[in-house]
Amino acid sequence: MSGARNNPYEVDLDRNPANYAPLTPLTFIAWSAYTYPKRPAVVHGRRRYTWSETYARCRRLGSALARRGIGVGDTVAAMLSNTPELYECHFGVAMAGAVLNALNIRLDAEAIAFMLDHGEAKVLITDRELSATIAQALARTERRPLVIDVDDAEFDGPGRRLGELDYEAFLAQGDPAFAWEAPRDEWQAIALNYTSGTTGNPKGVVYSHRGAYLNGVANLLTWSMPRHAVYLWTLPMFHCNGWCFPWSMAANAGVNVCLRKVDAAAILGLMREHRVTHYCGAPIVHTTLINAPAALREGIDWRVSAFVAGAAPPAAMIEGMERIGFDLTHIYGLTETYGPASVCARHDEWSDLPVGGRAERNGRQGVRYVLEEGMAVMDPQTMAPVPWDGETMGEIMFRGNITMKGYLKNPKATQAAFAGGWFHSGDLAVMQPDGYAKIKDRAKDIIISGGENVSSLEVEDAIYRHPAVMTCAVVAMPDPKWGETPCAFVELKAGAEASEADIIGHCREHLARFKVPKAVVFGVLPKTATGKIQKSVLRQQAKSASAIE
Amino acid sequence: MSGARNNPYEVDLDRNPANYAPLTPLTFIAWSAYTYPKRPAVVHGRRRYTWSETYARCRRLGSALARRGIGVGDTVAAMLSNTPELYECHFGVAMAGAVLNALNIRLDAEAIAFMLDHGEAKVLITDRELSATIAQALARTERRPLVIDVDDAEFDGPGRRLGELDYEAFLAQGDPAFAWEAPRDEWQAIALNYTSGTTGNPKGVVYSHRGAYLNGVANLLTWSMPRHAVYLWTLPMFHCNGWCFPWSMAANAGVNVCLRKVDAAAILGLMREHRVTHYCGAPIVHTTLINAPAALREGIDWRVSAFVAGAAPPAAMIEGMERIGFDLTHIYGLTETYGPASVCARHDEWSDLPVGGRAERNGRQGVRYVLEEGMAVMDPQTMAPVPWDGETMGEIMFRGNITMKGYLKNPKATQAAFAGGWFHSGDLAVMQPDGYAKIKDRAKDIIISGGENVSSLEVEDAIYRHPAVMTCAVVAMPDPKWGETPCAFVELKAGAEASEADIIGHCREHLARFKVPKAVVFGVLPKTATGKIQKSVLRQQAKSASAIE
Repeated sequence: MSGARNNPYEVDLDRNPANYAPLTPLTFIAWSAYTYPKRPAVVHGRRRYTWSETYARCRRLGSALARRGIGVGDTVAAMLSNTPELYECHFGVAMAGAVLNALNIRLDAEAIAFMLDHGEAKVLITDRELSATIAQALARTERRPLVIDVDDAEFDGPGRRLGELDYEAFLAQGDPAFAWEAPRDEWQAIALNYTSGTTGNPKGVVYSHRGAYLNGVANLLTWSMPRHAVYLWTLPMFHCNGWCFPWSMAANAGVNVCLRKVDAAAILGLMREHRVTHYCGAPIVHTTLINAPAALREGIDWRVSAFVAGAAPPAAMIEGMERIGFDLTHIYGLTETYGPASVCARHDEWSDLPVGGRAERNGRQGVRYVLEEGMAVMDPQTMAPVPWDGETMGEIMFRGNITMKGYLKNPKATQAAFAGGWFHSGDLAVMQPDGYAKIKDRAKDIIISGGENVSSLEVEDAIYRHPAVMTCAVVAMPDPKWGETPCAFVELKAGAEASEADIIGHCREHLARFKVPKAVVFGVLPKTATGKIQKSVLRQQAKSASAIE
Repeated sequence: MSGARNNPYEVDLDRNPANYAPLTPLTFIAWSAYTYPKRPAVVHGRRRYTWSETYARCRRLGSALARRGIGVGDTVAAMLSNTPELYECHFGVAMAGAVLNALNIRLDAEAIAFMLDHGEAKVLITDRELSATIAQALARTERRPLVIDVDDAEFDGPGRRLGELDYEAFLAQGDPAFAWEAPRDEWQAIALNYTSGTTGNPKGVVYSHRGAYLNGVANLLTWSMPRHAVYLWTLPMFHCNGWCFPWSMAANAGVNVCLRKVDAAAILGLMREHRVTHYCGAPIVHTTLINAPAALREGIDWRVSAFVAGAAPPAAMIEGMERIGFDLTHIYGLTETYGPASVCARHDEWSDLPVGGRAERNGRQGVRYVLEEGMAVMDPQTMAPVPWDGETMGEIMFRGNITMKGYLKNPKATQAAFAGGWFHSGDLAVMQPDGYAKIKDRAKDIIISGGENVSSLEVEDAIYRHPAVMTCAVVAMPDPKWGETPCAFVELKAGAEASEADIIGHCREHLARFKVPKAVVFGVLPKTATGKIQKSVLRQQAKSASAIE
């Protein structure tokens, strides 16, 4: 047993059931239910569950799945809104040893069918509201999974039941005292999340129990989240497993306030009713709250903390959040990093800066999460870190425990993503002199105009400073002379007005000539389920527009 | 690669350098130094170190040790007060791959010599103040380690240098940019802590990098510690590695305020000067602060949070801490559980109870830390959990990641401690109806009088309610008629008076007849370095006293 060096610390000091347990977030909910059985865990409209009740429902789910033969290596898909059922799936499915595949509910039938087949889902738990898409998807799948309907009493819209069983009836078949077992190995898969797949088929990102546990904890540390926080589910729980917050909230013994639909009145109403302390979302969520009528915010006089990701918060958002008394932290990550794996960790002295400086500092991708082991901006060819000069571009890379196991049944993509021992994010960034990373662009979003790189984000930042602009996106438009030129898509604030000439004139004041958009298109921007603007769609539009011109 | 079930999640999804890193608290200090290089990390008298400076000093230490050939499997012993040097040892020694053995500075030369020999220390870093003991200890050791002196500018008392090198000179030999490596396996040992060994030789408890990482994080979660907390080192850093707080504070990017000696004026002065927010200690530390002249606390008008362990806080302490505006949390654990592994997690509704009820609720050993996997009160013979009736006695057991690797070079003791897959604490307890454990006594402290079990703690609780009592301890005294009877040792508050008859009369009002002490001895109680009362010494005194009688 001893090593070459005769190391006494390697002798008779092995792992055993008393001193070693696989890391799994299942222990978090067992802890909350044990310690705070009567505290509220999940709130959804008129429905209320304590930690004891939620834990019992999760155990019923795990038990009912196990009784159907679902176990290690099996996939359970969920097509669910932010309801108690999806929260329960985050624990119950893993209690059976299986893997949760939370599907993006905005996807079409073709994409869903692909995911059900590729993930080999044995069970699909689906919300009645989404039955039209699911019915079509099931008609396309190679094998039909066991379909379980969620018929949420809080939803009175259209849709029908499609399945063999109702979710509550299924729970009734399970044992509320189910003696679930932790995975034998903490590397065991706990979740499968498909990337959006703007080009080619979506890739299935696999998370481990270990990673889910660690990022669940890392969220709490990053936010210094006090115990019993009240968390509002503005972020889709299907999106990177809600950035691991289902697990965080169990370790926090907090309250999960469910929400079927992002809507300013609904959000602010729930905040007031439940004294919400924390929520997450894409920029559009925060912009919506900032621009909501002040009357909707009345009575919310405590500090609400928000995480924003998906794009750097522009100055107007930083200022807007301060004005309404909300605290904003910018985090960054990808599906492959369990959601957030870096944060623009704040420094006290930033608050003394003028708003432009505050936006500039707080809008960066920042530094690694304290429980992620590595983050760097590197030349993807040489794997050499870029200098901290704020100018040299490289690719953001991560390594450590908050990085996926890999892509399911896709070793080629997995190897490419992990080339050189780091996960390649695909985001181009610079390293600023304080060691904080700042994204310049997605590799595929960069605009090359007359041989010069134009960062679409930089142009967007300039446009956002125009007071009439609510949302904008800049993409490459083919140009016979320059190769590509920037094309701006702009959504104006309600009641605000601005012309193409106004926006272009505004950009000329703030940007080098070659970075100024040649065209501005007004209208509602296409967004993904998670509020991200679909640049691929806009790129097609810009291509068509330039062809017509 | 695939299992019997053809599990797709087991294929091509292996650990690799991009998605897996061994857990080690060394990443915490790398993170603090990277993210908050200029923030204060360690404060000691007039000495001030930022996170960048502390990290550089730790790397110098690791590098200097490595250059002397110290590496994996080697022990570095430290005989140090709560100074920056001991803080640095918690990282620097591990950076060399070695194991830190922080020695209890109150021990005598014989015990220290035993530990140096048993732990095979290759290096000893020692404070000048402790040179008398160390000189004697070194004279007894089989092999002399490399001795490095710490000559703290903040200490002007007696003592001499003993070693080959001065600590600062040693650091100067090291590389501040030392490229330390994480352990290859997170199970690698990071620390060795000897138990007090009241009977027989001390046992060497071994901690792993994984456990240190997880308990470091668990402290932050348990306390909901906000980032940049200011932590005062009232707890000896040598005691279970300061309950893992050296590692917690690095993950917190907080401030470590050092303290060489527990003294009310010094503590309260530092609290005021540095706006201390958190500290830990045995009951005596808190009692000292409560009973200090109010003038010493002047100006401390923010909430200070305290952890207490070592004995249940009596009502007077709960009330006293409330009166001075300090927040008290009772935690419990042993050297074998990295310090705290359970906490009397509070419930809002307890604060509405009268002080007796608050003391009763908050004085329990409680529930497992959220990152420890199991805690139970069980019959050590059958390993059956006791009913939650508050009456049936069993032994507190732990299992999970916050439990030691085992005892160094002592497989017999290790096996006994882990019998049945749980760590046996040796503490006798009941499980109350809410699932909170309440210690009745150490197995060896229970008094058996006329065949009845008398909990020494219960008798002490009663004596503590007497207004003149500062500290007390009750042990068994041999008795010809009853076998054993309780004997009380009492330390009175400054200026307070009480006679043996007063104490006995007081106990009669609160206890069943057979639990009332037959004798009361007044005087200063013998305490260990960590403030624990040495019952073994008192037991000897009681034995002699009864023999004389």
